[in-house]
Amino acid sequence: MSASPGDLPEGFLDDLCALLSIPSVAAWQARGDGAMQSAAEWLRARLARAGLSARLIDGPRGAPPYVYAEGAQHPERPTLLIYGHYDVQPASRADGWSSDPFMPELRDGRLYARGATDQKMNLLLPVAALESLGTGEIGWNVKLFLEGEEEIFSPHIAETLARHRALLACDLCLSSDGWQAGPQQGDLRLGLRGFCGLEVTLQGAARDLHSGTFGGVAPNPAAALTQMIAGLWDAAGEVALPGFLDGVTPPGAEEIATARAGFDAGAWRRTAGLDPDAPLPVADEDIPVQAGLMPALEVNALDAGDFAGGFRSIVPREASARLSCRLVPGQEPDRICGLVSDALERATPPGLRLSVTPLPGSARAYRIAADHPGQHLAARALEAVDGQTPRLSYSGGSIPILGEIDRQLGVKTVIFGFGLPDENMHGADEFCRLSDITRGLAAWRMFLRRGARDR
Amino acid sequence: MSASPGDLPEGFLDDLCALLSIPSVAAWQARGDGAMQSAAEWLRARLARAGLSARLIDGPRGAPPYVYAEGAQHPERPTLLIYGHYDVQPASRADGWSSDPFMPELRDGRLYARGATDQKMNLLLPVAALESLGTGEIGWNVKLFLEGEEEIFSPHIAETLARHRALLACDLCLSSDGWQAGPQQGDLRLGLRGFCGLEVTLQGAARDLHSGTFGGVAPNPAAALTQMIAGLWDAAGEVALPGFLDGVTPPGAEEIATARAGFDAGAWRRTAGLDPDAPLPVADEDIPVQAGLMPALEVNALDAGDFAGGFRSIVPREASARLSCRLVPGQEPDRICGLVSDALERATPPGLRLSVTPLPGSARAYRIAADHPGQHLAARALEAVDGQTPRLSYSGGSIPILGEIDRQLGVKTVIFGFGLPDENMHGADEFCRLSDITRGLAAWRMFLRRGARDR
Repeated sequence: MSASPGDLPEGFLDDLCALLSIPSVAAWQARGDGAMQSAAEWLRARLARAGLSARLIDGPRGAPPYVYAEGAQHPERPTLLIYGHYDVQPASRADGWSSDPFMPELRDGRLYARGATDQKMNLLLPVAALESLGTGEIGWNVKLFLEGEEEIFSPHIAETLARHRALLACDLCLSSDGWQAGPQQGDLRLGLRGFCGLEVTLQGAARDLHSGTFGGVAPNPAAALTQMIAGLWDAAGEVALPGFLDGVTPPGAEEIATARAGFDAGAWRRTAGLDPDAPLPVADEDIPVQAGLMPALEVNALDAGDFAGGFRSIVPREASARLSCRLVPGQEPDRICGLVSDALERATPPGLRLSVTPLPGSARAYRIAADHPGQHLAARALEAVDGQTPRLSYSGGSIPILGEIDRQLGVKTVIFGFGLPDENMHGADEFCRLSDITRGLAAWRMFLRRGARDR
Repeated sequence: MSASPGDLPEGFLDDLCALLSIPSVAAWQARGDGAMQSAAEWLRARLARAGLSARLIDGPRGAPPYVYAEGAQHPERPTLLIYGHYDVQPASRADGWSSDPFMPELRDGRLYARGATDQKMNLLLPVAALESLGTGEIGWNVKLFLEGEEEIFSPHIAETLARHRALLACDLCLSSDGWQAGPQQGDLRLGLRGFCGLEVTLQGAARDLHSGTFGGVAPNPAAALTQMIAGLWDAAGEVALPGFLDGVTPPGAEEIATARAGFDAGAWRRTAGLDPDAPLPVADEDIPVQAGLMPALEVNALDAGDFAGGFRSIVPREASARLSCRLVPGQEPDRICGLVSDALERATPPGLRLSVTPLPGSARAYRIAADHPGQHLAARALEAVDGQTPRLSYSGGSIPILGEIDRQLGVKTVIFGFGLPDENMHGADEFCRLSDITRGLAAWRMFLRRGARDR
């Protein structure tokens, strides 16, 4: 299961390290360091080098550019749109990284860097696969479309798809953003959860107040915010937002059975840092049901009183939180954001002012049938590489573009990604395994070759 | 009411600015920048220049030094111990300062800097007053004792007093740490609240987890911490810790009447940034009763998920808070810390680990009678300067040494400070008014002169 750099196609690791060294953090665009543009330009040049006709598409209103590329188009072939994103989550040493997140380090067959598994390695797989095949071997008209805002939930994707519908027209979409079930087993997603997020700030006095002079009388935004957030769940731990589940169909027996099948609770617990016997809100077999088919409300960040600055005996002037929901079909992101916002507004004590800023990006939940022809093609490619059929699953994650491609281009997207869920996506010490590059390349080559024949 | 630098004794402003420029933040000792030592050494030299015999006393186990100084001792005079602290609260531009907190700026008769009012200006008043008087004019044997850990609640003060009891023996103590009732009215404290604080961290996974893969199942330390903290109060907003009020005698009618007398709710509300009609947990007349005579539990800081680093859709690996209590007589700091800690421990959900670190420093509540002879002396000095009798009050703040001086040296401490409560103690844009320097100096000279005669 371990691969040495020597097993990889020439230059792949150099390319990957070059791309990983660009801190293309969508959430840091305001810093104006040009990283998004650099990453997009690097990709454009790389795609051109692979023999594709590549160009940048401006993002609306200063958003990072999209990268578009296409190979030679043959009228008799079906068209495949390959999706990926070149942006990554924020990362800094302070989050617990063992090495600089933007200086890739190879240790024991793993390459550590922000974006290693999510999803710069995955992004380069179809490029290298295309490059390794002769034009005659490829069974598709290939288009690539890469965005730079997936990790901030693609605030401009609906508008961009609407504007470039003809350019992106296709028969099937393949998302390179995804991951596998196990070391030698692919994973075909039947669905993903949607997403909406918001940032809330509760303000008290104009300045931090002395907790002796004011403590016990002046409203404390930090104490009040804990109470307001705590009130979003009931005593049983269920989300207590009236209307939260309106329009939601509870998962059916078949979905539940599919979600449970092949789920490895031990591996999930290890990745979550939980003891085998640590109690969870659901039985172990229902973890994938809860995480894949049920909505969730999470507190992503809290802030008050400059924690890093040392103990100050103050009533802090303000307190902030970031909250987000993972959504299931029937839950419109804007409506759910509104429910959270309204509940917090109602719970705001007198003397404090609440401001709520919804995250500009969001995602609707997504579904694709197990028997979709694209799933069959993908399953065959994965099976050929792994020697076993891929697992079917529901993912708790979100890829905002999928719902839009479905709605605007009228096609489904097969999720065709490599890497394991223990690779610290979004966390510290994110890494990818070199062995998955080899597997991923083989599967991509298979998929690209077989498309015409099998369709 | 406004003073120009020209009205001040020569060099006072230069001295004050020099002292304010040293970032003697007790909470930052671990940074090892030598600021505490610098401030202590600066004060030792300044006291020597004032003709006092001055030296540093090492703090136990690396704690910042104490500054001790004494004038000529005359057996026939009573001994006055003057207390002050040279350490300050943390401060940084990010907290909302208009100028660098450690580069003093004079604007419209106000000097802005961290420690301006709390309490470097107050610290220098007795020094300048002593210097301006001939030895024959001073009615006391004067001792000065300055510490560098008041703002972290004097973790080593009990031990240090025990070790230097003979050196610090005195007939009365005067604390230069305090403030006044109004622009032209002194304030004599009849009591201060005690204090205890703790830092809590709730840990989940070893790393931040992807909120899609894990959200809704893996325990979320940030969400759990909001619920645990919220549970420290009941629905009516009262502290809900069993035993919190054990041993506490509710304030009596006389204490309540004293606390209410002369309280300016409008000024308090303006300082707290509250509208005149913003509802508070108590009626306006009871603000000083609540803040001075009743205990309080405050959330001073919250932290989870690297808020400053941008939106990350994670279940954060840990969440932290700083909590503190202001205490009344009968509430032992260690016991109350234990109650908070126990309540949080009981509320910790399975799968999360709580760690609690009590703040090393703490304070017992303090009381001094209105008719204590030292209060009479102070009242006369303040009256002579202001033309009106000082207000009697109970402060919600804490000065840890006072209870120890009471217990270990067997003397009471009169609180004799200058400056108004709107001067942003512990907050951003802390300042002192030059006009109070003039008043404070006159009052200190009066007190130092009259001591022998009136006692």
